[in-house]
Amino acid sequence: MEMKLPGQEGFEASSAPRNIPSGELDSNPDPGTGPSPDGPSDTESKELGVPKDPLLFIQLNELLGWPQALEWRETGRWVLFEEKLEVAAGRWSAPHVPTLALPSLQKLRSLLAEGLVLLDCPAQSLLELVGSTHPRKASDNEEAPLREQCQNPLRQKLPPGAEAGTVLAGELGFLAQPLGAFVRLRNPVVLGSLTEVSLPSRFFCLLLGPCMLGKGYHEMGRAAAVLLSDPQFQWSVRRASNLHDLLAALDAFLEEVTVLPPGRWDPTARIPPPKCLPSQHKRLPSQQREIRGPAVPRLTSAEDRHRHGPHAHSPELQRTGRLFGGLIQDVRRKVPWYPSDFLDALHLQCFSAVLYIYLATVTNAITFGGLLGDATDGAQGVLESFLGTAVAGAAFCLMAGQPLTILSSTGPVLVFERLLFSFSRDYSLDYLPFRLWVGIWVATFCLVLVATEASVLVRYFTRFTEEGFCALISLIFIYDAVGKMLNLTHTYPIQKPGSSAYGCLCQYPGPGGNESQWIRTRPKDRDDIVSMDLGLINASLLPPPECTRQGGHPRGPGCHTVPDIAFFSLLLFLTSFFFAMALKCVKTSRFFPSVVRKGLSDFSSVLAILLGCGLDAFLGLATPKLMVPREFKPTLPGRGWLVSPFGANPWWWSVAAALPALLLSILIFMDQQITAVILNRMEYRLQKGAGFHLDLFCVAVLMLLTSALGLPWYVSATVISLAHMDSLRRESRACAPGERPNFLGIREQRLTGLVVFILTGASIFLAPVLKFIPMPVLYGIFLYMGVAALSSIQFTNRVKLLLMPAKHQPDLLLLRHVPLTRVHLFTAIQLACLGLLWIIKSTPAAIIFPLMLLGLVGVRKALERVFSPQELLWLDELMPEEERSIPEKGLEPEHSFSGSDSEDSELMYQPKAPEINISVN
Amino acid sequence: MEMKLPGQEGFEASSAPRNIPSGELDSNPDPGTGPSPDGPSDTESKELGVPKDPLLFIQLNELLGWPQALEWRETGRWVLFEEKLEVAAGRWSAPHVPTLALPSLQKLRSLLAEGLVLLDCPAQSLLELVGSTHPRKASDNEEAPLREQCQNPLRQKLPPGAEAGTVLAGELGFLAQPLGAFVRLRNPVVLGSLTEVSLPSRFFCLLLGPCMLGKGYHEMGRAAAVLLSDPQFQWSVRRASNLHDLLAALDAFLEEVTVLPPGRWDPTARIPPPKCLPSQHKRLPSQQREIRGPAVPRLTSAEDRHRHGPHAHSPELQRTGRLFGGLIQDVRRKVPWYPSDFLDALHLQCFSAVLYIYLATVTNAITFGGLLGDATDGAQGVLESFLGTAVAGAAFCLMAGQPLTILSSTGPVLVFERLLFSFSRDYSLDYLPFRLWVGIWVATFCLVLVATEASVLVRYFTRFTEEGFCALISLIFIYDAVGKMLNLTHTYPIQKPGSSAYGCLCQYPGPGGNESQWIRTRPKDRDDIVSMDLGLINASLLPPPECTRQGGHPRGPGCHTVPDIAFFSLLLFLTSFFFAMALKCVKTSRFFPSVVRKGLSDFSSVLAILLGCGLDAFLGLATPKLMVPREFKPTLPGRGWLVSPFGANPWWWSVAAALPALLLSILIFMDQQITAVILNRMEYRLQKGAGFHLDLFCVAVLMLLTSALGLPWYVSATVISLAHMDSLRRESRACAPGERPNFLGIREQRLTGLVVFILTGASIFLAPVLKFIPMPVLYGIFLYMGVAALSSIQFTNRVKLLLMPAKHQPDLLLLRHVPLTRVHLFTAIQLACLGLLWIIKSTPAAIIFPLMLLGLVGVRKALERVFSPQELLWLDELMPEEERSIPEKGLEPEHSFSGSDSEDSELMYQPKAPEINISVN
Repeated sequence: MEMKLPGQEGFEASSAPRNIPSGELDSNPDPGTGPSPDGPSDTESKELGVPKDPLLFIQLNELLGWPQALEWRETGRWVLFEEKLEVAAGRWSAPHVPTLALPSLQKLRSLLAEGLVLLDCPAQSLLELVGSTHPRKASDNEEAPLREQCQNPLRQKLPPGAEAGTVLAGELGFLAQPLGAFVRLRNPVVLGSLTEVSLPSRFFCLLLGPCMLGKGYHEMGRAAAVLLSDPQFQWSVRRASNLHDLLAALDAFLEEVTVLPPGRWDPTARIPPPKCLPSQHKRLPSQQREIRGPAVPRLTSAEDRHRHGPHAHSPELQRTGRLFGGLIQDVRRKVPWYPSDFLDALHLQCFSAVLYIYLATVTNAITFGGLLGDATDGAQGVLESFLGTAVAGAAFCLMAGQPLTILSSTGPVLVFERLLFSFSRDYSLDYLPFRLWVGIWVATFCLVLVATEASVLVRYFTRFTEEGFCALISLIFIYDAVGKMLNLTHTYPIQKPGSSAYGCLCQYPGPGGNESQWIRTRPKDRDDIVSMDLGLINASLLPPPECTRQGGHPRGPGCHTVPDIAFFSLLLFLTSFFFAMALKCVKTSRFFPSVVRKGLSDFSSVLAILLGCGLDAFLGLATPKLMVPREFKPTLPGRGWLVSPFGANPWWWSVAAALPALLLSILIFMDQQITAVILNRMEYRLQKGAGFHLDLFCVAVLMLLTSALGLPWYVSATVISLAHMDSLRRESRACAPGERPNFLGIREQRLTGLVVFILTGASIFLAPVLKFIPMPVLYGIFLYMGVAALSSIQFTNRVKLLLMPAKHQPDLLLLRHVPLTRVHLFTAIQLACLGLLWIIKSTPAAIIFPLMLLGLVGVRKALERVFSPQELLWLDELMPEEERSIPEKGLEPEHSFSGSDSEDSELMYQPKAPEINISVN
Repeated sequence: MEMKLPGQEGFEASSAPRNIPSGELDSNPDPGTGPSPDGPSDTESKELGVPKDPLLFIQLNELLGWPQALEWRETGRWVLFEEKLEVAAGRWSAPHVPTLALPSLQKLRSLLAEGLVLLDCPAQSLLELVGSTHPRKASDNEEAPLREQCQNPLRQKLPPGAEAGTVLAGELGFLAQPLGAFVRLRNPVVLGSLTEVSLPSRFFCLLLGPCMLGKGYHEMGRAAAVLLSDPQFQWSVRRASNLHDLLAALDAFLEEVTVLPPGRWDPTARIPPPKCLPSQHKRLPSQQREIRGPAVPRLTSAEDRHRHGPHAHSPELQRTGRLFGGLIQDVRRKVPWYPSDFLDALHLQCFSAVLYIYLATVTNAITFGGLLGDATDGAQGVLESFLGTAVAGAAFCLMAGQPLTILSSTGPVLVFERLLFSFSRDYSLDYLPFRLWVGIWVATFCLVLVATEASVLVRYFTRFTEEGFCALISLIFIYDAVGKMLNLTHTYPIQKPGSSAYGCLCQYPGPGGNESQWIRTRPKDRDDIVSMDLGLINASLLPPPECTRQGGHPRGPGCHTVPDIAFFSLLLFLTSFFFAMALKCVKTSRFFPSVVRKGLSDFSSVLAILLGCGLDAFLGLATPKLMVPREFKPTLPGRGWLVSPFGANPWWWSVAAALPALLLSILIFMDQQITAVILNRMEYRLQKGAGFHLDLFCVAVLMLLTSALGLPWYVSATVISLAHMDSLRRESRACAPGERPNFLGIREQRLTGLVVFILTGASIFLAPVLKFIPMPVLYGIFLYMGVAALSSIQFTNRVKLLLMPAKHQPDLLLLRHVPLTRVHLFTAIQLACLGLLWIIKSTPAAIIFPLMLLGLVGVRKALERVFSPQELLWLDELMPEEERSIPEKGLEPEHSFSGSDSEDSELMYQPKAPEINISVN
């Protein structure tokens, strides 16, 4: 009889034969050593505070080959899910949900009921145990772990302290009766090669008997193993004191099994591990719950959200009623964490986060710099963008309440700045001084908002507001990227066959002048430059740049056309966009090891930029490149770093600036706080708390600073901050095969952000490298960011629902609880709001745009008259007042996680932000 | 108490209240009317040959609202799968596999065991029935079907003769005891609005009782409904004669249920209907099997294939041993079907098939025409391609053994023709006469192959051979498409900034000549044409075409460059490729109704061509266009339609032509028969049989004809033929919600092919339209066809496996039964063969290429020494000799269909050809 372990090296037989006794066993359990037989509750109360039960690894060893060549072979294993031995392929199956036939469970029950049950057996080794039941036996059991056992990759997946349970099943033809035995050791022992990993064994289940039709013992063995792998059964059987307890635990298991009818389900089908498991919590009696640790998978976030709203109990949003009370509380809350904000950063993960966020920040700074330069006619530019980002970002990271936030120029502020600039140009104002006063006023207003604890109003920013805002930003991105790309075709027109913008001649200064130069050039470039034989002695067909270099003047309609650039730019644009999109998807593909996939998808935009630059460099065409300042001085010629407070403006403009400042304050408040709300969502499990008031205070102070220096204005950027958090996720290492890693929280610290911004500042000197980046590539990346951000919000998914026939819609929880017409109505209202915002943004009324953003909150409030609280709970979130209006019963939704569609369902209820790499703000 | 039916119009209450008696029922079943109580087998034997049992529609009506507002409401329905009422959303859930809790089944059993069971109740209506159990009752039951019932869309999904079973469950607080009743009517009656569709009701199950914790009655009612929806239980309960039979049927159901452990599966998760259901056949006792019709879903094709090899019992491939014996048998087999070959085409589906295949054929003819013109220096061209395709194709459709085949130029024949042409050029031969003799010899050899019944050798063409061949063709396509595209950049070079191929001057004939013309032009085009002020009186910067038109000569290095064309062509190429690929995927997306999706994906290549043409026309650039003949005459100038037998060649070349003809014969045989084998696969369920000998005979005769006329040579084209068959699939209309349509067979006829080729012939006159198609678009489509064909073969999937970490590999049946290293070894050998074929094709040794194709069969034979028959069974197929060598036991694989991965598993075992639209051959 040989025990075979399928390991990395195929089927090398392990050395230790385990001759399990097959005779009749002593059926005398030792009742004295178990817990008192008057029910588990007494025992439990004593155990309160005791560490949770160890993890159990279960292995099924089968006795095969009766009667000629008996051997034990491991044919299945369980931690959470089942892995089957695939004999012919010589490997373990993928982990899957175990399925059983009901009769095998029933047979197991009757076998155990009649068989031997030894609980809290005091035996110190299998030797003793075997000795107590079957006295002839050798003593070669206490061996060192085998090489295969040590090399088994499963070993790393089991936490320290894990125990083993072994099911031994098979046919022994000489037995007259099937025989069942269940053994629980008081102290678990390591039993050589009995289990494939060297673990102390706690439980044994022996199922042997005469030949039976079909796979009787195999199935019974599986039933026993599945039973042992059930946490509830484990809990009970660890505390069982007699056979009755054991059978009661088995019956309790049977009470809770799910049954699939035979005609509608292939019993041999393998169900992949579900994304979310039911809460084991509910299955435990109340006194057990307190003992159980976090071993069981948690409630899904959907469930969470519907238990208690997103802002339900956050102390950060309680009004103190004192001036600056919130700010003071924020500071008090954050100060104790300050040292750990640096110490917690000492982890390799932070290094990769820095690299990733740095590249995103630089890309952002470059592009916003270009856009701002456009918008303000050079009053700000790439240099200001780099400098401002570095200074403001680093300062924020040092002082803010939520240092995971990444500050950046954002779309709405850019829109406002553009408006402000055209306003001041219309009134012939000196822009930067006027802007300084706007900044001073905004800072003042923001300080008032901080003093009055206005940030507690963010509780009214529901998903509706966030999505409207986010969708608008994404659309602006997409529109700008495509628009800028199309502008290139005006700069570099396409030459149609009929168009005569074709010829260009190089004309030299005077008649007969430069004759010598001409002759000198001719022999060298004979093939390239053709001198006409009709009096053309002082003109040539040299290309314009060379012509200029040689002192000539390019003349002709074709001199300013650069052929091929328009289409090549379009190709670069599309290539970088699609390449970035494709790399993003690599993460979920089946190819390559997960490290490679994660790397490719995390750096998708950087790789796409590199590809674009490579293509451009390969062909060497004169595509428009990124303009980077070569000197450290303000982009606007002739200004110092400090903006003079009045310039050429009359003094009263400094007072009048309060009006636009009011609007900008609303915008800044909305932009900053919506982002803050998203970042401090409960599902991120932040430990160190938020700091809404402190954050706004920092933004106000930085506003003052950047206005004085003529740098861009900064607020929190949603998507880049979320990418920052995503790169700092802490996850449990997947323990059991088939188990998904648990999200533990975020590595909350200030160092990564700080380093990112220091690097950004240093990048001002990167001009020699950055000038090789073609603009169409950057436009492509911006298109990608817009599309990625747009597709990450639930609103987009609901818009997609509009296009799907009801039959093909995913089985979303949302759709199970809200009539489709109502869902569509909600989506339509959001679309209408978005359209209105877009129109306002594009018209001269754009200056009131911040007010309209605030109006979104009002629209949401008005929706309470159209939709029931129950519907809004599913479609949006509840606002503070509303939360009280819904009966408690309604908050308990019927939790159904559709197997194949659970991805979609989660998609509808998780922020999905970690899916996006780079800021769109 | 009101009965509510959720229909299309939401929750309009139906009018008829069904007051189900809730008092105690008479528990006296009528045993005299049931089948004899001595077991069902006697009864069964009488029923042999009787039509199968009607389909049962089961509805769960719940009594809600005790005690205030009692109403009956339908909360669930079943045909094959369960649909739940989603109350809040007001709609039916998606169909899903029903899951039950075990206790509810057990409670149901005990309730029925103690309750009332009325079998073969003679009541003619519920009225009578109710009367027999509860004498107070009204008589308003016999009503016409309600409007809602008639409008219910479910009605169309139920076959005529379907019956209803109704489960009525709920709380009635005044009852002291739970009460169960099961009624089977001898003759089913229509009972007004009891069921949501107007069906005769056969079964009733009543479950009422005092208030119970949780959803007790709902779950018990569901259990009863699921039980009733089980085909095996239906069979038993229709024949049950007493309570004991009923309970035995319930117990038999319990014996076969699948059990999922509670901790690993959320019991409320909804499992989508599986792709393949287990065979119900196995569940029935032997005497029942003969009665059961094809109502149960069939074995999957994977199962099929492993039962009996693909060619196992096909009579077409039995050798008769007589000269032309196979041909004669083929003709005999096909003649009786001939009339039906036309009559069976009278279906709307054939119309869409014609349109679709016509477009594919024309695309094919155009592209192969272009390629052939290239290869033969114009000895053949697009006109010959159209004409030959039409003539040969139509003739084949009229005469062939398998008229679903579409004849086309194929890649390998094209390669051979190219070789033949360069050979005859090297020896200064007159090509077409030489080709005629090759054709004559090939026809002769093929006739010999027909006479000797060589086609039975196709049994040795396994998947290995097919895939090697198909992969080679696809690669040739991809290589050619990309290569031709890159060639365009040589024809239309990209102008780099440094390159001086820039200027072009328009020079007029004599000094001072054409001065008047110049002056005339100047005022009109002042902005466009610049006259230089330095003696340039007889030159201008007019673009070259206009210059020529005005009598000048374009002079300068830039005169021949056409800017922007290279990149625009690349854009067109990529656009048409990706657009076609994307449209292809629309079929499986969730958007749009399925008709729209199918249309978009079926016409993906046509739409992509249209898009490309549109883009091209929009920009109006001088991209290279398709050259189409404008007159009906041979492309080669100066030849008549009939090729002269000798031309300028010495006579002995007509004998020497036998040598290349031998090689070509092998190629034609392989190309033709591999396609024929694929088309006649068992999984297509062809009814009219194959005609391997007859097909080859037709090809030989057409070979003679096309050689004599100097037209291209034609053999069967795999992919376009498969697309043809796919467009003629007959499928059962999905009956029950959640059921997948069953594949019934192919609409086998000759008319669609015939019409396609007649239309192709008529397209010779389409030149004015076709000349607008840019070549890059066609190259893009060819790339698409190559990629689509390559990705459709199992080989490609195995190559992908090489790149996947074992952990992420799909759970394929193949991988469960063959060690991964062996799978990889097999793939590597295939890759090596493919590489060798590619090298040979590209070297001067290419002429022996047909022999190497034959060599694939030899390699496959040699693989029997490397792989076990069991492994080859999974990796490939078995060759005739091998089939005997494998023990019968090995042919019974363990059937496991992984829930989520079943798509992949099927993908590995189905030809997948219907996924591809257009021929690559």
